[in-house]
Amino acid sequence: MLNVEHIGIAVNSLEISVPLFEKLLHTPCYKREEVTGEAVQTAFFQQGSTKIELLEATRPESPIARFLDKKGEGIHHIAFEVADIEAEMKRLQEEGFVLLSETPKRGADNKLICFLHPKNTNGVLIEICQEIR
Amino acid sequence: MLNVEHIGIAVNSLEISVPLFEKLLHTPCYKREEVTGEAVQTAFFQQGSTKIELLEATRPESPIARFLDKKGEGIHHIAFEVADIEAEMKRLQEEGFVLLSETPKRGADNKLICFLHPKNTNGVLIEICQEIR
Repeated sequence: MLNVEHIGIAVNSLEISVPLFEKLLHTPCYKREEVTGEAVQTAFFQQGSTKIELLEATRPESPIARFLDKKGEGIHHIAFEVADIEAEMKRLQEEGFVLLSETPKRGADNKLICFLHPKNTNGVLIEICQEIR
Repeated sequence: MLNVEHIGIAVNSLEISVPLFEKLLHTPCYKREEVTGEAVQTAFFQQGSTKIELLEATRPESPIARFLDKKGEGIHHIAFEVADIEAEMKRLQEEGFVLLSETPKRGADNKLICFLHPKNTNGVLIEICQEIR
């Protein structure tokens, strides 16, 4: 894995949280993007080589809506950038980690993504992602 | 804030979690360090310009022991590097954020640190840190 590409934070309302994180991080939100497949609206902030991605659910069946119902607002996942997502998915499976999709899915920010089951990663939801070239 | 300096993850046992994260991140743990003031034993992994810091409690009254009792293993905090911690603490206070210490404390990895109260940061425990020069 190359670096921490972004940290995903589940929020109830981007309308409230975008100005809050602009004050906190002292930098403007530079992009908003809807990911229809995941039923989320996202907002991005750059911090050095890492992004902070705020996630608001757009439908009640969104994974983010379920997370908010269960745990409330807070850190949802860490995403690590990889050079070759299919090779990394194979390596992780061979190491005993459980992938949440058999093939890479389309994520926000022009990325192919795959999540790992948190039961094998100390309760941390890990995403691996690769830029679509 | 300059970049995501590290992400802190609370674990029950470094003995179990260090080899797990070595497999997951595909990189060796490069340092362990006890922080007596916080009653934690830490283990570090480098991922690009960001570190992953595993945290194990060394005493039952450790903040990490309380976190594990309440929430179980998982992401504990995000630490942002700042150039001047006292100036950043002043800026954040003026923006309405609540600091968990009035002055910077000594953290792991040769850092001065200060935490923000998560009630004002969407439930995310935020640390700011500055290298001790």
